[in-house]
Amino acid sequence: MAKPRQSVNVGLLGLGVIGGGVARVLLGKAASLSAEVGCPLKLKRIAEVDASRARSVPGAASLITSKADEVLNDPEIDIVIEVIGGENPAVEYMQRALSGGKHVVTANKEVIAKHGPELLDLAQKNQVDLRFEASVGGGIPLISPFRQDLLANEITAVHAIINGTTNYILTQMAKEGQDFAVALKQAQELGYAERNPTNDVEGIDAAYKISILASLAFHTIVRPEDVYHEGISRLTGRDFRYAKELGYAIKLLAIAKKDDNAVQARVHPVFVPEDFILAKVDDVFNAVLLDGDLVGKLLFYGKGAGAAPTSSAIVADVIRLAQNISLGVPQTPRLHLEHRLTIKHMSDLDTRYYIRLNVADRPGVLAQISTILGNHAISIASVIQKEADPQAQTAEIVIMTHPARESGMQQALRDTQALAVTKEVANFIRVED
Amino acid sequence: MAKPRQSVNVGLLGLGVIGGGVARVLLGKAASLSAEVGCPLKLKRIAEVDASRARSVPGAASLITSKADEVLNDPEIDIVIEVIGGENPAVEYMQRALSGGKHVVTANKEVIAKHGPELLDLAQKNQVDLRFEASVGGGIPLISPFRQDLLANEITAVHAIINGTTNYILTQMAKEGQDFAVALKQAQELGYAERNPTNDVEGIDAAYKISILASLAFHTIVRPEDVYHEGISRLTGRDFRYAKELGYAIKLLAIAKKDDNAVQARVHPVFVPEDFILAKVDDVFNAVLLDGDLVGKLLFYGKGAGAAPTSSAIVADVIRLAQNISLGVPQTPRLHLEHRLTIKHMSDLDTRYYIRLNVADRPGVLAQISTILGNHAISIASVIQKEADPQAQTAEIVIMTHPARESGMQQALRDTQALAVTKEVANFIRVED
Repeated sequence: MAKPRQSVNVGLLGLGVIGGGVARVLLGKAASLSAEVGCPLKLKRIAEVDASRARSVPGAASLITSKADEVLNDPEIDIVIEVIGGENPAVEYMQRALSGGKHVVTANKEVIAKHGPELLDLAQKNQVDLRFEASVGGGIPLISPFRQDLLANEITAVHAIINGTTNYILTQMAKEGQDFAVALKQAQELGYAERNPTNDVEGIDAAYKISILASLAFHTIVRPEDVYHEGISRLTGRDFRYAKELGYAIKLLAIAKKDDNAVQARVHPVFVPEDFILAKVDDVFNAVLLDGDLVGKLLFYGKGAGAAPTSSAIVADVIRLAQNISLGVPQTPRLHLEHRLTIKHMSDLDTRYYIRLNVADRPGVLAQISTILGNHAISIASVIQKEADPQAQTAEIVIMTHPARESGMQQALRDTQALAVTKEVANFIRVED
Repeated sequence: MAKPRQSVNVGLLGLGVIGGGVARVLLGKAASLSAEVGCPLKLKRIAEVDASRARSVPGAASLITSKADEVLNDPEIDIVIEVIGGENPAVEYMQRALSGGKHVVTANKEVIAKHGPELLDLAQKNQVDLRFEASVGGGIPLISPFRQDLLANEITAVHAIINGTTNYILTQMAKEGQDFAVALKQAQELGYAERNPTNDVEGIDAAYKISILASLAFHTIVRPEDVYHEGISRLTGRDFRYAKELGYAIKLLAIAKKDDNAVQARVHPVFVPEDFILAKVDDVFNAVLLDGDLVGKLLFYGKGAGAAPTSSAIVADVIRLAQNISLGVPQTPRLHLEHRLTIKHMSDLDTRYYIRLNVADRPGVLAQISTILGNHAISIASVIQKEADPQAQTAEIVIMTHPARESGMQQALRDTQALAVTKEVANFIRVED
């Protein structure tokens, strides 16, 4: 058994919004956290190039350095918290910390999604741990339940709202009838969306997160490039009105499913029935619904972003590592991911679709479109045709299909677009029942 | 470091509904569970007086014994799973297992609520662990999040639907307009309620569970006798109709709150606003909503009972213990509960109330009642008076109050009952906004 520790020392890389939150908790709750750990838990050093950021965190000024090396090379630091964000230099810092025998805690979904399996192996090789509870769902415990509490289950599906920015925008579009551009601007003004919102609104952030959850849920490697992703920028007020009329909400879902030995993982707008539990998750809240063979349906719901919730997850990881250090635990259960399942291509997806078309307002148009759909084995479940626009001489047709193959649907949409009577394939959205 | 284990051996006490589920998982998933543990995880012996129960579990017949001693005294058994239920002899078996240096996993909320602090100390003394994830919320991870993932938070409130039987009955009463007796009978026929439903319908089961959650949330000892509890048997269809009219649902909530250095814990029917997330938790589902200073509001939702969900929680506890045994982990973080906070008495509660009265249909009655309420510092928020019953010459009055002190309200109800014009104080229900 190891000898009792004098203290467990923590180094922090980054003092931005999240780093500031973490420093505030580590410094402000030092006494109660140390009681949980069993010996003093000390924030020893903070690496941040912008020293002025220390001003807003009481006690941080004396800890700050502009050099990451002063954290990474300090032999007294046991645990490194990485909250710089982005791929570089964060991944290199994590590699150096792990190689140097330091435990690492990170909130970095991009690095974990892209390099998680290799970093976990590097951690194992150096007999340290890599923890990343904060990388998905902010303060909602997700990584722990997937890694531990649900281990007796075979998980078959994960349906998740894991990007607060887009969920806020979609809520505004649904409730206030706002257009995408207006809702985005408002989200930016409120600080819910970044100045460059691409990662959020195009589903890239959610793709990183579902690749992490899918990897853990199915015990296999799911890379970000294995995740099909589409954003929300092409949604319009008209789609929300039709969705409501048909009894659906529109949500940006991250979905991962396992069938046979293949995994599908995708992020795109989805029509969800309005009595489905995820339809009721609004604003910046996140929710993850999973299906396990023993637990059945299980939902986790909470704040998926922000300094305080993210700090909750990061500090929980730090406490767990510090407890192990304090107790002299020689090893912890290994998380090792390998390529065990194949990835199902998006074109092989079978699902239902909502299609909205603007067509010439004349007889026989619907027959032409139905013929094309039929040619691609797509069966129509219902059609709405509203009154025509007399000036433009166009009519709007909304079609809900029965389950169909994605590849056939894509071809059918191209064929429909090519029809002389088609003004525009205005939108198509997949349906999840 | 301990030498590698040949296997980790498990003994099971009880082969009822839950025990059967656990045995099925341990025997049916032995290969994948062993892979998680790092060495073979073996169910070695099952103690059950009714040997015929082994028939429905493939592989169980050869393991069965009628004597608990054959599990408790077997030096090769590392982990004892207790799923007999009830206080005795379960508590004695757990004490003997812990004293004998065996880890214990239990689903027994009654024993944990009544004897948890002492059993945890006994475990610590014998350098073994006591785990009880299955004791609250079935398959929903709750104990782990409270013990670990949320440690950085100060938790201030827990609002929980943690009894599936009563939630099913209340859902039937709300949606189908059934009376309590009819809904209970149906729940019994479906196997959701026991033949003797007292523990569920009177809130005793929920009181055990919230005493466990409150103890963990607030790091203090909350005994079952510290939990005020009331059941659902006095609710009628009329209350549900008024609730709906007023924009509320009626749920049996288990509530624990901390303010200053006092804890209040209570189980009773509650008027909850219909857009409150717990108002939407129906049928046998459970949900636990907590408020933490960092995470904000966090909700866990899933199946709170049944053999498979409960087995999910029990086997997760077993895996965690077996991993520690397999890795030679000398100690795990200690859970030690002591009396740190005082218990706030129910009479000191401040809350809003719904009151339903049957009174004589004549002028001045409402004035008499308002006077009594005013005498006890209770202010009326709204009143509904429906048309009178001309035969009985009575009228029904429903009053919603502003926040008032419970002690004053109880006295006011007694005074109102004593009025000559009062036929009946038909019901009163606390309101949680």
